[in-house]
Parts: sequence; structure tokens; C-alpha cells
Amino acid sequence: MKILEKLKELGIEIKNPSAPLAKYVLTKQTGNLLYISGQLPIKDGELLYSGKLGYKLEIEQGKEAAKLCAINTLCAIQSHTDLENIKSFVKLQVFVNATTDFIDAPAVADGASSLFVDIFGDIGKHTRSAICVAQLPKNAAVEIDLIVELK
Amino acid sequence: MKILEKLKELGIEIKNPSAPLAKYVLTKQTGNLLYISGQLPIKDGELLYSGKLGYKLEIEQGKEAAKLCAINTLCAIQSHTDLENIKSFVKLQVFVNATTDFIDAPAVADGASSLFVDIFGDIGKHTRSAICVAQLPKNAAVEIDLIVELK
Amino acid sequence: MKILEKLKELGIEIKNPSAPLAKYVLTKQTGNLLYISGQLPIKDGELLYSGKLGYKLEIEQGKEAAKLCAINTLCAIQSHTDLENIKSFVKLQVFVNATTDFIDAPAVADGASSLFVDIFGDIGKHTRSAICVAQLPKNAAVEIDLIVELK
Repeated sequence: MKILEKLKELGIEIKNPSAPLAKYVLTKQTGNLLYISGQLPIKDGELLYSGKLGYKLEIEQGKEAAKLCAINTLCAIQSHTDLENIKSFVKLQVFVNATTDFIDAPAVADGASSLFVDIFGDIGKHTRSAICVAQLPKNAAVEIDLIVELK
Repeated sequence: MKILEKLKELGIEIKNPSAPLAKYVLTKQTGNLLYISGQLPIKDGELLYSGKLGYKLEIEQGKEAAKLCAINTLCAIQSHTDLENIKSFVKLQVFVNATTDFIDAPAVADGASSLFVDIFGDIGKHTRSAICVAQLPKNAAVEIDLIVELK
Repeated sequence: MKILEKLKELGIEIKNPSAPLAKYVLTKQTGNLLYISGQLPIKDGELLYSGKLGYKLEIEQGKEAAKLCAINTLCAIQSHTDLENIKSFVKLQVFVNATTDFIDAPAVADGASSLFVDIFGDIGKHTRSAICVAQLPKNAAVEIDLIVELK
């Protein structure tokens, strides 16, 4: 209950996750590890952040996009198991849709990392890599990929 | 035997896998998880799909490229253990060599995802992320990265 | 002790690792798997290799950059547990900052792969994928991402 209360406090609603864009599933558990499919900055079925960092989008917008991806990742986890069952955040990969001279992927990625740490505290601390890619599905600004360990 | 029969039915031959391009190995098992090195759309030693989606290649060719990567991934798994020993497909990453405005990576990635699900059914369902990258080894059109759980 | 002696022999010093660039941690263990955050070619706090392969940098420099990322990854592991406790190198992802026509990511990635195999022998052999990306944090030439299994 504590996690859901914290989410409420932060004004974050955990809804039913978006259906996968194609022929894959949202989550897959192997042992205690839960893999979550790449999440985009979609809200209520609409892609809220599109285009490239370094061209159309500012860092702050990139951060917001990453945060929204992180919220969607939590929705995906909650559709598999209660968020209280997360033992530890393991690995986050952040893919930033960017121009070839945009060197601030870590600042963008912090939008997702901060959300996990703000809500889950020490449990939310994770390893990470952040890279800029040529494009993302639907011209999304950010996509994130997460692995968590369940209790 | 069932899996090999299904592969035969679909006209897919499981051959000896291509040797790694460099100083790494094809597969590595840790616990029940089997990691497979990135696979390219190579057949009989020849790269069949090269160049960028959104420029030289159409989506259908990208799908075929992804399917061929998936077949090579199965060859790699079979060189490690019988394909019947797969308990579950866990995580697929699809890297698409594309122009900076190609937004259909998921359609390309479906070439690999569909193959796994067509052959393995529910076991073949996996989490996924699909991104467009600046380039791939040998100018390959697609590269895929897979983790499966073994029985 | 054997590993540290081998490192000494190769003139490689295992120092305290660089702090993460942002809101994440350097290592995270789940079961016997240790995930290490993406490492850049930084030495003594300074980024030694920046810019794109295929434009500013030659393959040899890319290899050196990848090697330095690999050394930093070992520093990160050593800050978590003794390097002697590594049972097996599992998966390496190499991200190369490159132009859209640079097709030699595997040669660059070998800079990291060789180091692991030279130092750890059979244990050091790993699965791998190597991709070229649009940009990396701080305009780094290479970033690597590693998973190892601990004893």
C-alpha cells in the first residue's frame, strides 16, 4: 500500500498499460527477474513526446518523456504483480531519439531514474546505460527498457 | 522433436551457426538463462540484407532480415542445447539499421517475433524493445539479441 | 590474487571507479548476476576518447577507447566484490559513437572483449552485441554495458 500511496501523493495514476505495439508481450518473468518491454511516452493512447532531442525538443521535455516512460513501465509491472512485490530495480536502458550532436542523454534519462528512486527509495536504485539512437518507434522521443527483481 | 518438425514444415533449416565475427562466443549460460550473441541476417556465410531501412530497404525486406536473424539465433541455441529444452523466450532486442526518419522499427522487429511465436507458440512470447541505430556490423540491415530460459 | 597480478603484468591499474554521471548506481547484484552501469572511456576523471568513429577517430583509437571502458568496468566490479569472485563473463553490449556509414563496430568492440579474455581466459569469454549509435554521453567514443556471473 505504501507505494501506491506515494504514487498518489505524486499525482501519478497507475492505469492499465498500453497494449504492445506488435507481436510481443508486456512482461516476462524468469525466476525472480521480471523483464518489461520497451515503453514509450504514451498517455491515454496518445504519444505525448515525439521528435528528436537536440532539434525539436529541449532537455526538460526529454526528462518529462523519460518520466512518462517510467510511469508506463510501472503500469506494466502492476499488470503483472503488485508494485509492492518489487525487491529491487536492476537495470535500466534509456534510448533517446536525438540528433548526432546531442550529448546529454544522462540528463534525459534522469527523468526515469529519479521517478524510480523518488517512489521506491533505495530499492529503486538501479544500474543504467543511456544512449542516443537514430530513431524510435512512432518517432517517440524516448524509450526505456527495465529489469526488476521481485520478492 | 516437435519443434524440429515445425521448423521443417516451415521450410526452415537449422544449420551450424556462423562463427562469431570477433573475440566473443555464440552463447553463454548462467543458471537457466541462455544469452545469445547478436545475430545478423547471414545465410551460408553471406550477408543477405544490408543497408538502411527508410533508404535502400522496404519494411518487408526488413522483416525478412529480422526473420533470418531469428533463424540464426535458433541455430546458435541448437548448437548449445536442443531447441526442445527452451522453457521460455525472455527478452528480444532488435536493432534496425535505419535513416533518422524511419519510425517503423516495430514492423521490422515483428519478422523475428512472429517466427518465435509461430514455432514455439506461447513459449515463444517474449518482451521486446526495438530501436533504430546509426549502423550495424558489415552494414547489416538488422541485428537481434536474445535471452531465453532453459528447462 | 592471480587476476590482480595479471592486471599488474599488463600495466592495468584498478582504481576507485568514477562516480555515476547521474541518478543511478554503479553495480547491482541480483542472485549471482552482477549488472554494471554503462562505462565510458574516462581516466582520472577525464574523457580520453571523444567524437565519432568514421569521422574523427580511427579504428585503433576506438579499440583503445573500448579497452578503457573495459578497465573502468573492472574497477566498478572490484568496488563491489573482488575480481577473483567472477565466475563468468555473461553479456557485453558495445555502443559505438559513429557516423552512419561506419561498419566496423566489431573491430572496435574487440578492444573490450580482448581485455576480458586476456585477463580472465576462458572465464572471460562472453556473448556480445555491438551497434553504432547516434551519440553517447559527453560525446564519448564508446560505451560498454556488462553482466557477469559471480561465484
